[in-house]
Amino acid sequence: MAVKKLSILGSTGSIGTQTLQVVNNLPDKFSVVALAAGGSNIELIKKQVETYKPKLVAISDKDAACELNRQLDNHETEVVAGVEGLIAAATISEVDIVVAAISGVAGLLPTYQAIKAGKDIALANKETLVAAGELVLSEVKKKNVKLLPIDSEHSAIFQCLEQDNLNAVKSIILTASGGAFRDYSADELANVIPEQALKHPNWNMGKKITVDSASLMNKGLEVIEAHWLFSIDYQDIEVVIHPQSVIHSMVRYSDGSILAHLGVPDMRVAIQYALTWPKRCKSQVKQLDFVKLGEITFKEPRWDDFPCLKLAYEAGKAGGNIPAALNGANEAAVEQFLAGYIKFNDIPKLIAKVMESCSFMNKPTLEEIIYTDGFARKKVQEIVSAGKV
Amino acid sequence: MAVKKLSILGSTGSIGTQTLQVVNNLPDKFSVVALAAGGSNIELIKKQVETYKPKLVAISDKDAACELNRQLDNHETEVVAGVEGLIAAATISEVDIVVAAISGVAGLLPTYQAIKAGKDIALANKETLVAAGELVLSEVKKKNVKLLPIDSEHSAIFQCLEQDNLNAVKSIILTASGGAFRDYSADELANVIPEQALKHPNWNMGKKITVDSASLMNKGLEVIEAHWLFSIDYQDIEVVIHPQSVIHSMVRYSDGSILAHLGVPDMRVAIQYALTWPKRCKSQVKQLDFVKLGEITFKEPRWDDFPCLKLAYEAGKAGGNIPAALNGANEAAVEQFLAGYIKFNDIPKLIAKVMESCSFMNKPTLEEIIYTDGFARKKVQEIVSAGKV
Repeated sequence: MAVKKLSILGSTGSIGTQTLQVVNNLPDKFSVVALAAGGSNIELIKKQVETYKPKLVAISDKDAACELNRQLDNHETEVVAGVEGLIAAATISEVDIVVAAISGVAGLLPTYQAIKAGKDIALANKETLVAAGELVLSEVKKKNVKLLPIDSEHSAIFQCLEQDNLNAVKSIILTASGGAFRDYSADELANVIPEQALKHPNWNMGKKITVDSASLMNKGLEVIEAHWLFSIDYQDIEVVIHPQSVIHSMVRYSDGSILAHLGVPDMRVAIQYALTWPKRCKSQVKQLDFVKLGEITFKEPRWDDFPCLKLAYEAGKAGGNIPAALNGANEAAVEQFLAGYIKFNDIPKLIAKVMESCSFMNKPTLEEIIYTDGFARKKVQEIVSAGKV
Repeated sequence: MAVKKLSILGSTGSIGTQTLQVVNNLPDKFSVVALAAGGSNIELIKKQVETYKPKLVAISDKDAACELNRQLDNHETEVVAGVEGLIAAATISEVDIVVAAISGVAGLLPTYQAIKAGKDIALANKETLVAAGELVLSEVKKKNVKLLPIDSEHSAIFQCLEQDNLNAVKSIILTASGGAFRDYSADELANVIPEQALKHPNWNMGKKITVDSASLMNKGLEVIEAHWLFSIDYQDIEVVIHPQSVIHSMVRYSDGSILAHLGVPDMRVAIQYALTWPKRCKSQVKQLDFVKLGEITFKEPRWDDFPCLKLAYEAGKAGGNIPAALNGANEAAVEQFLAGYIKFNDIPKLIAKVMESCSFMNKPTLEEIIYTDGFARKKVQEIVSAGKV
């Protein structure tokens, strides 16, 4: 395998730092050409620049970019700022593959531009496909780039999908840990606080996705992501609660076979696979021990207690700009919840209200998607401010 | 897919009759050119001949062959007898793929001849590879035929092995139901009778294999079969008890990924896959429902209470003609057990004694393998007759 040249968007986040661990594990397989981060952790990005000596580092926050530039001794690395900076890091000519790991809809634009520049994408940012699946996929096809999933569920499905037997796929089965509140009663759910939502039972992830796991919206977003990644109808996407998170997802074939991907819950497996695909390389990740594991279980999702999952199916089936509205409303509602302004159960209520009030646009442009996202966020803000959740 | 022309060796047995169900399910994909059976069930073979109108039907038992010939109205089908008849059915020129489903070492010779005749093999007869793995595989390579496993475990592994990543395979994981006695104490095991051994908890199979399941020898034979089928070292073959039999086996890769094949325990999935490979077709088999299933469990095998498994690893590692001795001794011992002459726990004792007394032959010829098999059976008979188990 020739050395692959990477650009890592979101390098100080959970996926970004784990991507760099994968790079450390296989130093002769990868070189880091560009890094991009928000700017909230200057110390870490500085250390990353000093270690990997990328050609370019992009910082969204312009003040943080100036500060980093001041602090850096390494003058081989160019520091760029703002959205333009992110796009520069996403499209820099030497790069073979862009790791799209900026959280939320903020990752959409640089990822889209990377595709337009003909880069392969290792996609951790599910909001890109949720908000703009049709647009992004049509660009992926046009540019003939590879879109390699980093989400553990989608990586699992990607690994279990036989390209020669796509017509024999009956359904895909997304497994869900059930999140922090899977064993909470409906009454208990009404009064949970952010600290509780941030305790994920199995996976070590960022804040927003951890809350999404607790509300099952993360699974909902994954349903929409899977629809686009694998061209599969919503009715053929199953969700099953599997609290141990060792089966990462499955593909069900019409011959009665189910292929599954298993392993310890460690994102580095999916990250490394996306980067070494179609090859597999030795990793430092622990191997799953079935005897120690003892048992694994499966349950039906509690659809009524966790309405976000149903809302995501509805948004996906509605299509157009509605998934972008769902996603924008969710991001804004999660922020409100984390800030202590709304209750956990208000998240789906807000999303439903936004979806109802959003005008439908068929085949939205990028601008219309960004408009819809902004509309959804503003609407959440309005409803919360008016005390009308 | 062009119509595949089948020869089914062992057509009245469990695998044979299920193979015909698969043919019924996909009538435009297969035609039955030859059938072969022992002759203990003339009525059934007659019905099969009338239904599928094969060109040839072979019956091992010569009297039964005469009787069938007398009873058949259909004079398009030629009836042949004895081992020569089986070989004729295995090598008939029109046939594309031979389903090797004669139980026990009796299946070795016709399977070997089919390979020599350049036929692809759908292999249910594990004893062929246990007794003569090296010889058979060298012939498979020489003739460049496909060897497609029908055992559910090996079919699972075959489906989970990525041809481009064979160098990244860390181990294969054979799952074992644990058989009829998995929850019996050592004391209880000492006094079990054949009727108990014949009650398999999950799979509906023939008598010999059901007893082998109860003793874990079936898993031991599968270990040796897997060694040959997938060119994998014995130290890299794991066995885990999984009582629900829904994970049919797994492949563990060095990147931390495990790929697994799941489904309801129904042999028709593996049979159909071997016949339609590399394609998958719709089957009539029930789909697995994870919510209904609820949970699945894993345990370490009870190595000391079920010594057959360890004996099989030892025989496999010893190589040469020792696996043939193990297999011959096991077949003879199971017969003795089913006839009520020995206890269940005598089976491994007899096998160990035969393995000790067998002279080692490196790279045995087919004749030496058949000699070893005969030696093992005679030795079992001798020990039992002398009351010296």
